Amino acid sequence: MSSTWGKRIKITIFGESHGKAIGVVADGFPAGEKIHMDQLNQFMARRSAVGKKYSTARKEPDVPVFLSGVLEERSAQEGHEIYTIINSPMCIIIENTNQRSGDYNNLKDVPRPGHADYAAMMRYGENVDLRGGGHFSGRLTAPLCAAGGIAKQILERRGIEVTAQMLSVGGVSGVASEDAVTGIHMVDEKGKAAMEEVMAAAQADGDSVGGIIECVVTGLAPGACGDHIFDGMEGRISQIVFGIPAIKAIEFGNGFACAALRGSENNDPFYVDESGTVRTRTNHHGGILGGIVSGMPIVFRVAVKPTPSIFKEQDSISMSAGENTKLQIKGRHDPCIVERAAACVEAAAALAALDSLMDGE
Amino acid sequence: MSSTWGKRIKITIFGESHGKAIGVVADGFPAGEKIHMDQLNQFMARRSAVGKKYSTARKEPDVPVFLSGVLEERSAQEGHEIYTIINSPMCIIIENTNQRSGDYNNLKDVPRPGHADYAAMMRYGENVDLRGGGHFSGRLTAPLCAAGGIAKQILERRGIEVTAQMLSVGGVSGVASEDAVTGIHMVDEKGKAAMEEVMAAAQADGDSVGGIIECVVTGLAPGACGDHIFDGMEGRISQIVFGIPAIKAIEFGNGFACAALRGSENNDPFYVDESGTVRTRTNHHGGILGGIVSGMPIVFRVAVKPTPSIFKEQDSISMSAGENTKLQIKGRHDPCIVERAAACVEAAAALAALDSLMDGE
Amino acid sequence: MSSTWGKRIKITIFGESHGKAIGVVADGFPAGEKIHMDQLNQFMARRSAVGKKYSTARKEPDVPVFLSGVLEERSAQEGHEIYTIINSPMCIIIENTNQRSGDYNNLKDVPRPGHADYAAMMRYGENVDLRGGGHFSGRLTAPLCAAGGIAKQILERRGIEVTAQMLSVGGVSGVASEDAVTGIHMVDEKGKAAMEEVMAAAQADGDSVGGIIECVVTGLAPGACGDHIFDGMEGRISQIVFGIPAIKAIEFGNGFACAALRGSENNDPFYVDESGTVRTRTNHHGGILGGIVSGMPIVFRVAVKPTPSIFKEQDSISMSAGENTKLQIKGRHDPCIVERAAACVEAAAALAALDSLMDGE
Amino acid sequence: MSSTWGKRIKITIFGESHGKAIGVVADGFPAGEKIHMDQLNQFMARRSAVGKKYSTARKEPDVPVFLSGVLEERSAQEGHEIYTIINSPMCIIIENTNQRSGDYNNLKDVPRPGHADYAAMMRYGENVDLRGGGHFSGRLTAPLCAAGGIAKQILERRGIEVTAQMLSVGGVSGVASEDAVTGIHMVDEKGKAAMEEVMAAAQADGDSVGGIIECVVTGLAPGACGDHIFDGMEGRISQIVFGIPAIKAIEFGNGFACAALRGSENNDPFYVDESGTVRTRTNHHGGILGGIVSGMPIVFRVAVKPTPSIFKEQDSISMSAGENTKLQIKGRHDPCIVERAAACVEAAAALAALDSLMDGE
Repeated sequence: MSSTWGKRIKITIFGESHGKAIGVVADGFPAGEKIHMDQLNQFMARRSAVGKKYSTARKEPDVPVFLSGVLEERSAQEGHEIYTIINSPMCIIIENTNQRSGDYNNLKDVPRPGHADYAAMMRYGENVDLRGGGHFSGRLTAPLCAAGGIAKQILERRGIEVTAQMLSVGGVSGVASEDAVTGIHMVDEKGKAAMEEVMAAAQADGDSVGGIIECVVTGLAPGACGDHIFDGMEGRISQIVFGIPAIKAIEFGNGFACAALRGSENNDPFYVDESGTVRTRTNHHGGILGGIVSGMPIVFRVAVKPTPSIFKEQDSISMSAGENTKLQIKGRHDPCIVERAAACVEAAAALAALDSLMDGE
Repeated sequence: MSSTWGKRIKITIFGESHGKAIGVVADGFPAGEKIHMDQLNQFMARRSAVGKKYSTARKEPDVPVFLSGVLEERSAQEGHEIYTIINSPMCIIIENTNQRSGDYNNLKDVPRPGHADYAAMMRYGENVDLRGGGHFSGRLTAPLCAAGGIAKQILERRGIEVTAQMLSVGGVSGVASEDAVTGIHMVDEKGKAAMEEVMAAAQADGDSVGGIIECVVTGLAPGACGDHIFDGMEGRISQIVFGIPAIKAIEFGNGFACAALRGSENNDPFYVDESGTVRTRTNHHGGILGGIVSGMPIVFRVAVKPTPSIFKEQDSISMSAGENTKLQIKGRHDPCIVERAAACVEAAAALAALDSLMDGE
Repeated sequence: MSSTWGKRIKITIFGESHGKAIGVVADGFPAGEKIHMDQLNQFMARRSAVGKKYSTARKEPDVPVFLSGVLEERSAQEGHEIYTIINSPMCIIIENTNQRSGDYNNLKDVPRPGHADYAAMMRYGENVDLRGGGHFSGRLTAPLCAAGGIAKQILERRGIEVTAQMLSVGGVSGVASEDAVTGIHMVDEKGKAAMEEVMAAAQADGDSVGGIIECVVTGLAPGACGDHIFDGMEGRISQIVFGIPAIKAIEFGNGFACAALRGSENNDPFYVDESGTVRTRTNHHGGILGGIVSGMPIVFRVAVKPTPSIFKEQDSISMSAGENTKLQIKGRHDPCIVERAAACVEAAAALAALDSLMDGE
Repeated sequence: MSSTWGKRIKITIFGESHGKAIGVVADGFPAGEKIHMDQLNQFMARRSAVGKKYSTARKEPDVPVFLSGVLEERSAQEGHEIYTIINSPMCIIIENTNQRSGDYNNLKDVPRPGHADYAAMMRYGENVDLRGGGHFSGRLTAPLCAAGGIAKQILERRGIEVTAQMLSVGGVSGVASEDAVTGIHMVDEKGKAAMEEVMAAAQADGDSVGGIIECVVTGLAPGACGDHIFDGMEGRISQIVFGIPAIKAIEFGNGFACAALRGSENNDPFYVDESGTVRTRTNHHGGILGGIVSGMPIVFRVAVKPTPSIFKEQDSISMSAGENTKLQIKGRHDPCIVERAAACVEAAAALAALDSLMDGE
């Protein structure tokens, strides 16, 4: 059941990295909404390793195939497929086409540091597929992005935009400025170049590097969603975001920085602007008050740990021998997953926003 | 439904700050387990404002009364009550005895910055009780602590300890040292004194101050709990922890710091210790790998924002007039809730641990 | 968790027959709706044994007390209390005032035929409260009626009526006629008298008697609620109705009778009436097609088994001795619970209708 | 969400009759259990129309394909595939190979009496696929049978047998005798021949016919599963059984007959048999007391309505014209689905039993 998330929309993610296919059953999406397939495929491409320099050599095209839950329409324009969501669950599958399970043969004995291998063996024993990370693989974020990409299209039609970008990598920030009112950070070309250098250096060393992603949701009207206690937006967003492997921290608004402030500094004063709209002068609260959206942009940041799969020799153990050993990882791995993870965070935030909005209707 | 949490145990929190009573229905707790009432009352007292210097002048005794779900036993020792959990849901209520609703009369027109007032009015309109924060009040953490205190007793019998403490307040750290292996922080008397000064100064200024809490869970065997994707321990813990008002950030293990590291630095190498036990040399992963407990202590930190209720005059708006106004808050408020919140975080973590453990059985 | 029901509204029933109080936490009810307390108390009285001739001598007033989730209003008219539902969960408790636990002392050794005693002991062992039936007691239908009575008031304001009545008792029918179009049965005074005789005779013999209840829901627009597969109205209604102890069968529309028919006889032909409304000429489908309401009245019948507690000596066993024994039940029992159960079926159907309607919004 | 069922195991059924594929995601099945594919295919064949005389001319092979959640093993014996269930969700798909959507072209205007068409259009408007019944189609019981067939294999290894058979059709009973203790009915060859005649006659007339199915679950130890109130076995079984289209009634034990009895007749006296086992002398309670299994066989019966699709001309309406019209159904339909439905009831009961058992562990 651990692969199911949501209240009003419900997604169940299935599949293993080296199985036949991975996918998602997505239920409760608003019937009648359209899915523009070219737009969805473009979004999927942002997560895909295809065409990415600092990503794994396992390049999967990741084309989502709909088995159910939609009716097809074909617009006049050649190749521009549009689906209409109907009232039964969508099942979307993505074939696994490019496995090399042989690379993983010794992992059941020598667990990779920083990976799920050891913990998963202790939890599930023999009854787990660890080839390529199995159901723990980052590959399982592809169906998350399929569902999230659909959510993004629905939200856009309601004036709600969800965007995520990399702010820093390996401790090097790409941030050029911060908006004084919203607290949103801007990355410029210079910043991007600096971050690219860090990734290139890690790759050259057979190492990997972590980073920070900021996600922003705009267009939510005050009180549009979020509920008391366990259904506050922070809890809803966290639960789905931590479903993305490698994320180890999340903060909303000014986050950890608020702990160093006084109430008189941290409180965001309300005012009525010239158009009669209620706003706050600052956005330390990250668009969420009492779990409910305030009308200011939702802003949150997550920490992505460096990919645990590195080509440097590491200390590990032999489970069978019960003794220390060295581990040399083979396979095809990402020196930096932060950019690809940004698409996943965006997908997760879009699903959380849509689910919450529908819960408020 | 937003007031319900859990998979194998399920808690539903009810009540409003100025209603007749608050409470919790707790279902699925393991039948046959004992509840020592003196121990539970002591734990509840950690959250209570009674006897706390930097806390609200509203002092509620917060005695939990069990309406159902237990059988009473009485030990030989006078006054030492022990209950046995049975197989039907526990309903535990806590009377509200010390309300002064008059203090909140103007809040429905002039929302308090940093509070749920404005967002809640936009979300629920007239159909919400905002006296004393209503269902959003920090008072609702009392039933959370009642359920969590029971979870703590059950976990202790299984060798699992959950503890939380304040690490810093208003940017002043009380930390004396950090354990090189586990990453757990130690606070000493000097640190406590420094933090107390910060709180006293905020109180003197009619202001408030935020802080950071660290929570540690020890005694979980490798693979004892946690599951793939959405039921990883990070997600499970986050969802309940963000149910505590004022928490705006959470990080596991080295958290945001991991984003500045390379994989070769951040990965925690496995080794077999002299007793044949598998351990990691460091605990950057905070006891959680692939969402599953690794056998190392779970370590996480949360940021608590400064209490938004301060006595300084603030900018706000009149909802009825649609214009800017000044707000002078009356009532009885905590200059610093971080210490009290530590008990709540402990309760939340205990509930997450017990629920996860039962899901693994 | 077995005491929780619902999707959009969620009720959790707690308490044991001889504990301090029983009650319900009801979450998700539409905020802003009013609860007329005199009307609710009248409905509760239909379930109560007070003033009933063929019911248990344990007469509980069953006054529902609201701990949370409502705001009080007081109309001009003295004693006419009106509550407004707000957006946090209602907790409603009903005190147990009239227990005689001594009557149940030997039940843990000699289980009552037809009762939960034996099965519950085998399921839960020591950790169950069987005094007066504990959490299995028919008394737990009082909080069901409290929640259901509120649902009925909300539905009435939307033009939806839920009614249930006894059709037969001990095999003697009180039915005078059946509506040719809707399939609804009418009971007349003569029928009532005949059924009363049956109950009186059973009481005189220290025995009990079962019966059949028909429940009708009118006013649901075609397509207003019900969903595919597991959320069809038959499944939704059944799950809550079987939460009432003693119900052993349910049938919708012509029910078991449809099994003897051909399609050409059983299908209900559609037609457009003079007002342009689509109707069916008959209602063999009981107002439900494909799980969805058709616009015809929902009609279903349930079988209530005779109260298993009778004063006649019965064969049972001694659990401790592992041998056969005789059982002579003491205590206060209903010779016929069918009339009281009709209110419970009505409450259950109202909750199912409201929950389904909200799921369709 | 209406296509999801279960607590400890969770099945989500997807697909439409004329879409690419139908299927099920099945989560929480006990890892390590084996699936014998030949046995599963045999069970699927019981539901399939292939080789059935009184069934639809649409003959689908219905081969379940596993996309995830299993590891394959191959025994020495050629063609005898065995899968091992692992700890991530199984996705099982069944291709649709034999659609003729053209047959359904006019259904969106002229709804078929007794079918979901009209109610579904009123509920979902344009956003529903009604070709071949869409998600309402009896075809969706194929994935139910795939999941149920797996549950049956797991239960069999625990000594629990689930069987269902047709007792009567069109009012003609095939029952030769009834077991005095268990209440289970026996059908003999003569009875089968009589029922076959009824089906042949209906087919010859272009009509259809309903029937009654009895399902028996043996091997459940006293107290093995079932819980209070809403999780009693009656409620759990009903909710999934009503997920099978065409079922309109269910009764447990003596069911509706109990309503005509006195307590002294209906109560099943306990006794200790020569081996020291507690039994009841009769099984009016159908193996369920207080919602919990008593150790006697679970016995329940369901009514299957006659297939609404018949070739006789029927009265219906034109939705577009808003006037009465005649309907002549084309397509390929079952004159009697009762035999095929028996496999579905068996699958549903197996899933309910397995889910309940796991909830008791």
